[in-house]
Amino acid sequence: MTEEEKLEIMRHSAAHVMAEAVQSIFPDTKFGIGPSIENGFYYDFDLPRSLTPDDLSLIGSKMNEIIAADMPFVRQEVTKEEARRLFAAQPYKLELLDEIPDEKVGVYRQGSFIDLCRGPHVDSTGEIKAFKLVSIAGAYWRGDEHQPMLQRIYGVAFVAKKALDEHLKKLEEAAKRDHRKLGAELDLYSIHEEAGPGLVHWHPKGAVIRRVIEDFWKDEHIKRGYDIIYTPHIAKLDLWKTSGHWEFYRDNMYSPMEIEGQEYVLKPMNCLGHILIYKTRLRSYRELPLRYAELGTVYRYERSGVLLGLSRVRGFTQDDAHIFCRFDQLEDEVVGVLDLARFMIDTFGFTTYRVLLSTRPEKYAGALKVWEEATDTLRRALEKLDVAYEIDPGEGVFYGPKIDIKFEDALGRGWQGPTIQIDFNLPQRFDVTYIGEDGREHSVAMVHRTVLGSMERFLASLIEHYGGAFPVWLAPLQVMIIPIADRHLDYAHQLEDELRNEGMRAKVDTRSERVNLKIRQAQLDKVPYMLIVGDKEVADSTISVRLRSGEQAASQSLDSFKRSVRAAIASRAKDLEL
Amino acid sequence: MTEEEKLEIMRHSAAHVMAEAVQSIFPDTKFGIGPSIENGFYYDFDLPRSLTPDDLSLIGSKMNEIIAADMPFVRQEVTKEEARRLFAAQPYKLELLDEIPDEKVGVYRQGSFIDLCRGPHVDSTGEIKAFKLVSIAGAYWRGDEHQPMLQRIYGVAFVAKKALDEHLKKLEEAAKRDHRKLGAELDLYSIHEEAGPGLVHWHPKGAVIRRVIEDFWKDEHIKRGYDIIYTPHIAKLDLWKTSGHWEFYRDNMYSPMEIEGQEYVLKPMNCLGHILIYKTRLRSYRELPLRYAELGTVYRYERSGVLLGLSRVRGFTQDDAHIFCRFDQLEDEVVGVLDLARFMIDTFGFTTYRVLLSTRPEKYAGALKVWEEATDTLRRALEKLDVAYEIDPGEGVFYGPKIDIKFEDALGRGWQGPTIQIDFNLPQRFDVTYIGEDGREHSVAMVHRTVLGSMERFLASLIEHYGGAFPVWLAPLQVMIIPIADRHLDYAHQLEDELRNEGMRAKVDTRSERVNLKIRQAQLDKVPYMLIVGDKEVADSTISVRLRSGEQAASQSLDSFKRSVRAAIASRAKDLEL
Repeated sequence: MTEEEKLEIMRHSAAHVMAEAVQSIFPDTKFGIGPSIENGFYYDFDLPRSLTPDDLSLIGSKMNEIIAADMPFVRQEVTKEEARRLFAAQPYKLELLDEIPDEKVGVYRQGSFIDLCRGPHVDSTGEIKAFKLVSIAGAYWRGDEHQPMLQRIYGVAFVAKKALDEHLKKLEEAAKRDHRKLGAELDLYSIHEEAGPGLVHWHPKGAVIRRVIEDFWKDEHIKRGYDIIYTPHIAKLDLWKTSGHWEFYRDNMYSPMEIEGQEYVLKPMNCLGHILIYKTRLRSYRELPLRYAELGTVYRYERSGVLLGLSRVRGFTQDDAHIFCRFDQLEDEVVGVLDLARFMIDTFGFTTYRVLLSTRPEKYAGALKVWEEATDTLRRALEKLDVAYEIDPGEGVFYGPKIDIKFEDALGRGWQGPTIQIDFNLPQRFDVTYIGEDGREHSVAMVHRTVLGSMERFLASLIEHYGGAFPVWLAPLQVMIIPIADRHLDYAHQLEDELRNEGMRAKVDTRSERVNLKIRQAQLDKVPYMLIVGDKEVADSTISVRLRSGEQAASQSLDSFKRSVRAAIASRAKDLEL
Repeated sequence: MTEEEKLEIMRHSAAHVMAEAVQSIFPDTKFGIGPSIENGFYYDFDLPRSLTPDDLSLIGSKMNEIIAADMPFVRQEVTKEEARRLFAAQPYKLELLDEIPDEKVGVYRQGSFIDLCRGPHVDSTGEIKAFKLVSIAGAYWRGDEHQPMLQRIYGVAFVAKKALDEHLKKLEEAAKRDHRKLGAELDLYSIHEEAGPGLVHWHPKGAVIRRVIEDFWKDEHIKRGYDIIYTPHIAKLDLWKTSGHWEFYRDNMYSPMEIEGQEYVLKPMNCLGHILIYKTRLRSYRELPLRYAELGTVYRYERSGVLLGLSRVRGFTQDDAHIFCRFDQLEDEVVGVLDLARFMIDTFGFTTYRVLLSTRPEKYAGALKVWEEATDTLRRALEKLDVAYEIDPGEGVFYGPKIDIKFEDALGRGWQGPTIQIDFNLPQRFDVTYIGEDGREHSVAMVHRTVLGSMERFLASLIEHYGGAFPVWLAPLQVMIIPIADRHLDYAHQLEDELRNEGMRAKVDTRSERVNLKIRQAQLDKVPYMLIVGDKEVADSTISVRLRSGEQAASQSLDSFKRSVRAAIASRAKDLEL
């Protein structure tokens, strides 16, 4: 058994111990399930009242008692009938029991607690080492919003206290960087129950970041030979039937609207509009590749239970593009996208990423030979750029193989990033062709790709990566000018004008508050630069610069400051320097 | 009677004469209605077959015969019963007859034709002067798509041949500039029956123009103290019930979609998302005015019969903004919007515009006093800027008075442009307030405004205004580089690189075609500058510049060319110069 497997067993056993502790406090608890998960475990409970943080301490203490008592875990095999008696007061367990086809089932006991469980477990409760209960959350039974809402307690568990402490510190750091928390504190976005869950409203400051990213994205795409286009958010349902989306993707699509007897749906993807534009005229091989890029907002149904801030939403803007090319151009095109994806990841300050090449799944469209060639093309492109990659066998989309890139943020957490998908399906269904050098019609090779993913999820990753302290080029406000007294206001506004004329985002804090309070506020708002101006600065026509880190520079001229800010913006510098 | 009234009577009489001519060719014609319209007249016919352009000539000749015969128009008053006998074979006339409450009705005869008509008419057909039949179009009876489709013939008519000829020339010019024709020829956009009528797909070249306008628009708004935001395209129906849109605007909204038992609709306006963002926290009087701007794509139902290219569509992107301010700031805010609107109109090269101040309609929300004050505020703002305006009495929206600006294009045709609307309704319904200096809650003043209207309609006006020959800063392709022979290709690409590095939109025409053909194509594509490069240019490292007008400049250095193009772009010059 590997260390990782041993750890999983220990975590699973900790879940049972937690259940025993809960039972000792709430004897009528109905138990859901309690598996091990990454770094720890959880258990779902149906309880007479909502749990409080105080309950967590109490449950934790009880667990420590049970662990200290070192009670053995005892496995027993019983008939289903016996099991039904054992769990007569446990409706969720009975439901699970009904679904087990075997005649005999396993149960595990430790102390006064018995659970329907395959195991395995540790030998006795004393083997459970460093653990901590970390949070409470609501969770529908079986993840289904039509079922009762249970209370889930999450715990983390490790062999050594040191590993636990390190993990808790990471959790604490992650909580501080949670984009939902920072999104509210920094006034970046909001989601409104009245408008609908999963629908993001970008506030002025969040919108600045999005706009800067979009402008950068567009410029970079134009440089690399893409054409920007715009397509509508709705289309006739029939189009999505032709494409196969209504058959294969319907669960993620919204219900149709009726207009003059025709059904229309919100687009869940941008591809069809791009195909319609491609097909407005006959295309020659000379025109290819055509690269159509769109910041296209799509709407996909996600269960309200799984929605999460900006990272799991119902409407999002994909940084989408579709490449139409000849098959002999495919490798170069994939190399181009990979290069662009790496450039983007690097520009935004992520340093580590994992590349997965997903191959043919069991159910697939298109000929076997074409699949093999396309998968080889992806492989060759990866190798050409010396990109290390793993194979994700059978995880391609039904319409073609793909490359996914997951980048890691400052805390080492993975984020779904760029994707490059070859599509054999749509060109066939929509008869997307070009006239070859031979004067005959040929099917195009089509690539779907994003290099950021979506603006929403990407912003979530950026917020958490930087803990809200964005690089200057992305910061909503770049320079906060803080006059020491009202008599310095004129000079402050003069500085503001000069910086704004340079296209910099600068503002004067005009409030009648103490300077220290203003500095503290600008630091909380994570404004990269503060210019503090008082008598000396007005007299000498200089400025005092302070960074959000607290670092302070000597007096300097506005020109010298502008030069260094300009340079930081132009180079998209990740770190602030003085 | 004014000259204009006399002209209208003559045009209406021409419609009757046309009906007589049609009857003489198709004796079984069923007649719809035939009014005078701006510049002419039309008549709707139910005919046994579709009309051809040849039919128009024939009908025109018949009309000339009737006019030459100088037959008198005779009015007669008959009972409804008599009228029913007279129009026994005319189902549409019988339908109209049924709706007339009076016991007696008027009929007019000239020659063999009799019509149910109030008149008045000219004394005899000889008084009809210069006319021409110009087009045939389908038109539903009573404009209702559930009724039969009739054939409508349009004619124009004037007192003098000169006025007719001038008008026909203008029509010809308008047809050449028709944005639907140029949109296809210049490859700017398309609309697809498969995706749905009225849904615009912006092609690469059209999207360049849109993007350049949007970037300019955003920069200008940021300069003027607006915040750019983004809001979703759907929201819960309940929100639109609270706002009153579902009650007052439902006919223009799409049918709801259902998500997890909740109804959602596509937004027909951007205001509610902006209000939700405003309301995410308490606002102090110190923060106001807040100016939220969004290039917000909205969807509104329009009957398919009225859709027209880019100018009447079902989905469009408004250059929208909502200003939340104190009532004492309202005048300055309106002045600011007016100034911005004039700046925009002027920048895009329109020279004439009409301003309408629309006052309180019969049905209105809010107190009379508030209406008067707000209308005065609009008036004062107009006068402060010395803007000439007309009053459009009773044409305000139910929620407040407004200013509309209609600008004229190169052919003197009016386009709906900026609108500034004060809203008393939404702040009440959503309780949109701020905390005043007195520490108490006050209702905000809210302004809805666009300064272009929508990207779609504005592009239609631009295409027609410039006949597709856009100013350099807007041109999709700014410089076409035309090598005389293949040996000049390297130099051509070198020029292309240098221009692109400057951010200019340049391309080499690499086709193996004759130079004259390439020049002709670039002229048809209305590319502002052509650089023709041959042996001499390669040898001297110079370029020969040709304008799309055919004008040609002496050889010059690339640097000098770049300088003048850069200046033309920076100043958003309307005309090309060498």
